[in-house]
Amino acid sequence: MDMWLKEGQIADAAMTYKIKETLVTKKTEFQDLAIVDTYEFGRMLVLDGIIQTTVRDEHVYHEMISHIPLFTHPNPKKVLVVGGGDGGAIREVLKHPSVEKAVLCEIDGDVVTECKKFLPEISCALEDPRCEVFIGDGIKYVHEHKNEFDVIIVDSTDPFGAAEGLFGGSFYKEIYECLTEDGIFIAQTETPFYLPDVVKRVYDDANAVFPVTRLFMAAIPTYPSGFWSFTVGSKKHDPKAVDLSNTIDIATKYYTKELHKACFVLPKFVEDIIR
Amino acid sequence: MDMWLKEGQIADAAMTYKIKETLVTKKTEFQDLAIVDTYEFGRMLVLDGIIQTTVRDEHVYHEMISHIPLFTHPNPKKVLVVGGGDGGAIREVLKHPSVEKAVLCEIDGDVVTECKKFLPEISCALEDPRCEVFIGDGIKYVHEHKNEFDVIIVDSTDPFGAAEGLFGGSFYKEIYECLTEDGIFIAQTETPFYLPDVVKRVYDDANAVFPVTRLFMAAIPTYPSGFWSFTVGSKKHDPKAVDLSNTIDIATKYYTKELHKACFVLPKFVEDIIR
Repeated sequence: MDMWLKEGQIADAAMTYKIKETLVTKKTEFQDLAIVDTYEFGRMLVLDGIIQTTVRDEHVYHEMISHIPLFTHPNPKKVLVVGGGDGGAIREVLKHPSVEKAVLCEIDGDVVTECKKFLPEISCALEDPRCEVFIGDGIKYVHEHKNEFDVIIVDSTDPFGAAEGLFGGSFYKEIYECLTEDGIFIAQTETPFYLPDVVKRVYDDANAVFPVTRLFMAAIPTYPSGFWSFTVGSKKHDPKAVDLSNTIDIATKYYTKELHKACFVLPKFVEDIIR
Repeated sequence: MDMWLKEGQIADAAMTYKIKETLVTKKTEFQDLAIVDTYEFGRMLVLDGIIQTTVRDEHVYHEMISHIPLFTHPNPKKVLVVGGGDGGAIREVLKHPSVEKAVLCEIDGDVVTECKKFLPEISCALEDPRCEVFIGDGIKYVHEHKNEFDVIIVDSTDPFGAAEGLFGGSFYKEIYECLTEDGIFIAQTETPFYLPDVVKRVYDDANAVFPVTRLFMAAIPTYPSGFWSFTVGSKKHDPKAVDLSNTIDIATKYYTKELHKACFVLPKFVEDIIR
């Protein structure tokens, strides 16, 4: 019998993936968790029916959400990842030797446990001595830490249900307070193709809080439309204008220094959304 | 009963589209043709089970395959489109007032007929007096016309079966002969995510014929992986280095002058493929 995963995010245009093996399914305190092995994309983490990350294309998302802010900041020492329990963002963050401490604040401990077990190539850096894993509410954590992090990465699920509070102006004000004086914030902010209103709202909310707000795009095959936006809010450093000529080389599969600039050049319809 | 189109190009990771209405299905002399209306992407042209173009996202492909070469050439007067029977590339080509004549050479007359009937917003420009529609073999047409076109656009189906002869060194040599002395050629060249070998082979073949060869990317949701490559072969003008400051403004939804340059900045894995 052929088993297929049909992803339910876009009702009338779904991606489907042929499943080799279901490794775990679990109802956690917060969501339905599954890790399945697929023929085309390898193992993938699925939360509430939505693909979060796959072994085959996870590098695009994790490289871009990490290296853009970390290469924009001149000397990132303390980094906070809100969400991101798979550990992929932490793995990329810790490629930067300036980083002394990277905190992962994930609300769902089961995500961390199962990713450590079934997605070791993504979660590997969670064992790094510079990484501290904190299981708890990101909103509360950010509220209780002021002026502490050079970079905050919001690596959340979609802005519906559990993660709704991680999008929007009131959280971004807390993020601002949690950052050091030249700190940088980044969040995954959905696809402008299917969700232009979400992209616009999040951009406007960030723009109301941060002196520098920028949106960039990356190509992620397993996310709806394959074309994903990230929003950067920065107190001082402009990710689009930063001088990268003296930054270190880091092994990547998607990110390059040239792409760091080019990814901020938006197609007309995306420009129009955030204008 | 729910009707869904499952696209068969990638065996184990298929896109599926809920169908509102099937407008036409036909076995032509060359291929199985269907035009269906879908809930998410509107009407779409499907050839041998592969989506060619949809009303909702066709502009990305047609703008990028047309405006990149036409804005790179300083004065494009005669343009040839090989394939492209839906008329979308011709529509974009004719937005350039310098163009005196645009020839469409499509092997399958049924594609032109059905697109005129069911996809008028894409095929509209085929009625333009500057457009000449020729139903016949593109390879033969190119062979029989020497030193004639300023821009040649190869808007073909995938390089398997009918369109195979439109990819590769021997055809590119004929294209070179068919172009004027500073002519430019462009082709859609598949996705580097699923078909890196095709992308590499086509790039190398073009590079062996043309003094300037460049590859760029565009985000097309209904094409596999959502991330599509185009290869430009040019006798003289470099599409990545061209001065666009004095070019006219054209109404677009995806292409911009800034993106004209940025789309040539490739992710690391694509750079590696064509290195």
